[in-house]
This record gives sequence, C-alpha cells and structure tokens, in this order.
Amino acid sequence: MKMKSLGEFGFVNMIRKRFAGKSNDKIVAEIGDDCFCFQTGKSDICITKDMLIEDVHFKKAWISPSDLGRKAVEINVSDIASMGDAQPKYLFVGLGCPEDISSEYIKKLYCGIKKACDKYGIIIAGGDTVKSDKLIISATAVGECGKYIVKRSGAKNGDLIGVTNTFGDSAAGLELLTKFGAAYKFGKEQKFLISKHNCPQARLAEANAVARYVSSMTDASDGLYVSVDLIAKESGKGANIYIKRIPLSRQLKKVEPEKSKRIKSALYGGEDFELVFTVHASKAAMLKKLVPSVSYIGIINDTKKVKYFHNGKEEKTKYCGFKHF
Amino acid sequence: MKMKSLGEFGFVNMIRKRFAGKSNDKIVAEIGDDCFCFQTGKSDICITKDMLIEDVHFKKAWISPSDLGRKAVEINVSDIASMGDAQPKYLFVGLGCPEDISSEYIKKLYCGIKKACDKYGIIIAGGDTVKSDKLIISATAVGECGKYIVKRSGAKNGDLIGVTNTFGDSAAGLELLTKFGAAYKFGKEQKFLISKHNCPQARLAEANAVARYVSSMTDASDGLYVSVDLIAKESGKGANIYIKRIPLSRQLKKVEPEKSKRIKSALYGGEDFELVFTVHASKAAMLKKLVPSVSYIGIINDTKKVKYFHNGKEEKTKYCGFKHF
Repeated sequence: MKMKSLGEFGFVNMIRKRFAGKSNDKIVAEIGDDCFCFQTGKSDICITKDMLIEDVHFKKAWISPSDLGRKAVEINVSDIASMGDAQPKYLFVGLGCPEDISSEYIKKLYCGIKKACDKYGIIIAGGDTVKSDKLIISATAVGECGKYIVKRSGAKNGDLIGVTNTFGDSAAGLELLTKFGAAYKFGKEQKFLISKHNCPQARLAEANAVARYVSSMTDASDGLYVSVDLIAKESGKGANIYIKRIPLSRQLKKVEPEKSKRIKSALYGGEDFELVFTVHASKAAMLKKLVPSVSYIGIINDTKKVKYFHNGKEEKTKYCGFKHF
Repeated sequence: MKMKSLGEFGFVNMIRKRFAGKSNDKIVAEIGDDCFCFQTGKSDICITKDMLIEDVHFKKAWISPSDLGRKAVEINVSDIASMGDAQPKYLFVGLGCPEDISSEYIKKLYCGIKKACDKYGIIIAGGDTVKSDKLIISATAVGECGKYIVKRSGAKNGDLIGVTNTFGDSAAGLELLTKFGAAYKFGKEQKFLISKHNCPQARLAEANAVARYVSSMTDASDGLYVSVDLIAKESGKGANIYIKRIPLSRQLKKVEPEKSKRIKSALYGGEDFELVFTVHASKAAMLKKLVPSVSYIGIINDTKKVKYFHNGKEEKTKYCGFKHF
C-alpha cells in the first residue's frame, strides 16, 4: 500500500498503535495531543515539532524569508499554546538548504525566526543545517508546562465548543496566491487574507488566559473540521456544530461572495492556528469576557458523532481539506 | 553570497554570533556542543536534532529501511552520549515522505527506529509526518543529563586525547557503495566496512563509563579531524596528533592497501560516531582499563593550533572531508 492510500491519519494511527512508547507515570501527554509532555524533576516539559517544506507548505515566491521564519516559530508556539498555560522556552532549527540559496535569504529567514522568538522570550538553542534540494525548516520547540495542562481528551457532555477569532482566512489567502501569484495587485481585503496565511499568530496569551477553565483544547492547524473531530475522538464524545456561528472575517465575506465556499474554507482550510476548546456551559460567558475574541460554535454530546447543522437542518459533511497523502 | 561559499561552519558561526540566545544561568551547554542542555526543576535536560535527507545522507538503494531507522536513532544517541553520563529518554520523528513510497517501507523504517529505541529504553514520543519529494528523517532526541556533564570546551594543557574503537571504516564503506553499488558481491571485509557505514553504534555505555574522568568530549560525526578541531577551538587550546596512533581496523587495512588513503578516510571521512575526548594524563591508563576500546592519539597544548605528526615530522593537513556547502 502506498502512503497515498494509507492517508495521514491512517499513518499516525498505525504508528501510534505499533510503535509509540507505552505510557508511564512521567508522561503527561503523548501522541494524539499537540505536544508531548513529560515530567522531569518538579516541572513538566512540553515538546513539539513542525516541518515546513518548500513547494509542499510554501512557495518561496509567495512569502518573504522573514515571514517564513516567523511562521515557523508561530506554528510551533501555537502547539505549545494548545497545552494550556505552557510557556515556550527554547527553539531548535533544523534547516535543509539548497546550495545555491543566497546567504542573504538565510539571514533574513533567521531574522524572522529571531523576531518571533524575541516576542515570546524564546531562546534559539541550536539545530542542524544540511544540504537539500528544497528548503526545509524543521523546528522543534520546547516549553515549560504551567499549572493547568489541557489535553484534547477532556471534553465533557454539555460543554460548549469555543474558538478564537475567525476561520477560513488563511485558506482563502492561499487560494488567492495560487490563483493570481504573488505579483498581482491585490486589494486591501485580499492582502489581509494573504497576510493571515503568511503571518499567522499563535494565540498564546489567549490560551494562557483560558487554561484554568477549559476542559480540552487544540489549535486549528489542519482546519476547524479536523480540530473538532480530534477533540471529539480523543474525548470519546460527539458534537453538534452550528455552521452559522462559525466566525468569519469581514474581509473573507467581501472577497468570497459565495457562502458555501466561505464555509468550505472555514471548515477544511488549514493553517488558521486559532484555538478550539471546550468549556463547561456555566463558565462560557465569563470566559468570553476574559477573551473577547471567543465565539461558541457548538456543544459536546455523547453520540460519538460530529454533526453539522445549518438553518436547523443537518448538513452532511465530508473532509475535503489538504491531505499530505 | 551563496551558502556554498559561506560554508557550513561559516554558517554556524554566523548564526551563533547573530541569532543564538544569550546564555542564562539555566543553560548548561549550548550551540557549539553536541547537545543543548538546560536546567528545569532539579534535572538537566539535553536535546539534539539530526536530519537525514535522501540522496544527501543516504541512498535508498544502499541501506535497508530498517537500518536507516536504526541509524537515525543511533546518531542522535551518539550526540547525547557525547554529553557524558546523560541518558536518552524520548525521540521525536519528523518524517518527510514521498507520496509514492510504500507503507511497507515506512513500517520497516519505523521497525528499525523502534528496535534502536528499545535497545536504549527510549520512548517514541511523537513527531510530524508531511509530504516531500525526498525521504527526510528529522529526529530529535531528548535525554536527561547525569551527574557529569561533559562539554567540548573543557580540555586542559597536557591532557591526552583519547578515542574509542577505529576510524575511517564508515567512509571506506561509503566509498565501496559509491564505486560498486549495493548489488555488488562484496567480500567479508568490504561487508564489514559497509555495515560500519549503515549500522553505526552510539558509544553510550563507553561515554557513561568515562564521563566522570574526562575533561571534554564529542562524537566524531564529521570525522576525527573536525572533532579534534572543535575540542581545541572550544577549549581555546591546540593539540599534537600522532597519525600512527590513530586506530584503524584490520578490515580497512586489508581493503585499502594505500596508507595515505586510509589516513584520509580516518581523518576526514565522517560518520564513525566514535567518541573523541580529553583526559588528565594521570587517569589515562585507568580509563583504558575501564574501556579497553580506547586509544590515545595525541596531547593538548596551548599553541591554539592543531598539528599532525607522522614519523616524527609535521604533516601539513587541510580539511578535505564532506561539505554540506
């Protein structure tokens, strides 16, 4: 069987079943969560790893080296944020470099990495640089867990499903780049969507603020649909999602007049890097006051199925987002 | 300037000077050492990262998927071993996969990873799998430091320079594969050299045993010449190396009758993954009893230059090993 037919999640499940380490009392969170967390001495450490590969995750013509460097950091910080009130501390940068790339490009890439690290107080701790055909950025971030470690698996019946900010912008930005190229004279709203794709922001402050109240959390790196699915599956629950409540940006509404396409971007388009979490209904209003960018889009139940509703009717859905395999 | 002209070590120095985090009292070892080590709670954690890229570090035709998986683990454990009596604990596997690769191949690769992890009691903790043109294995290993953290920078005047086992075998094995291809009917000695290239062994037990006695240590991943240079530079010292004392295997001597070529393999050929360390002369004999595979090849001095001697005369050397850029 080819990787193509096995699929990414089929692959992860195969690895998890056959090869992942047996849990022990020092392991706080493992495969199936955004980070791996383990206890050492008195603290818990969380680690995450994300690869960006040229022509798979980005095209050099579409993103500046500095933005690419920042993005590599933000997506890792986003994974650490997903764990609750964890703080990112160190970053390791594995770089695969084509030999004809200019050292100016690499300097700018590192400037972007450094800028994003400085923002979060992260120390660039080391890495590995090797030759490769395509530019590869394989970053590993190490954080210290806080008092409240939040996993994907804690959702309870009746919990509300909350998200931060808006969905679908990043996918719409990517579509604009694919369709018109980076040299096109984009309008203001189009530029906004492209910058949401190229310059995502990890929601660390938001995650830290909600950590003590939420029952489960993840970040929407592979799209809202996948995130809700993961929380439901890991928690052994189901969910009802109300499509109209999914927050969309003013800019997405303007650039994409077709409603069904907007919803498709929001559900299946990846790389929004917003938080998706669950919280007891009694705390939902207070939490929204704490983090005003929060919206509630659905509710957890014990059906073990995730259903989507639109104007009171169930809408049949099928994953149609980006697939690695 | 292209990466090619800047060179790998020029690049590392640029990064180190411009972007690496400022040391703080929680950081135990940093860029310039085999691992990054930091303090958390009561323990010290060490982390290392190594990438293997198809057609740069390996060819699929020359190494079985299982051996490739084992090698990815061993080279990371080798970095952790370099830090003294550290113990590897967790492994993260970032995999870049061509989409037409068979899932059988990936399973075998993971079987190799698992086998090597089991040998050291390492838990496979997670990772990231993405699509890419070439097969990429980007592994990150996390270890716990022991009582004796050994850096590259601790060599003192008059310390003897010790190494484990033999040098040049891996490079000679690679040369055989390059020259004849994997299908060639190799003799026994040739097979030995190829297996030294494809199935390196981290010297964890040896490193753990010598940790409390040695003043500096590294592993010879980029060749003996580079390792001695790194120890001398990081310690602000010089060294005299006596070429005749560099241990060569019986098999290398048989397969490569030309003496100067053998020496070239030993000095500049990478991927031997043997330990290179320095120790006070008074402890050298005791240490050799403790780890019989140890040989002493030279002595540290304060000239700030590394010189090579052959039959009493200085031999001019110039790095001619593998360069990424």
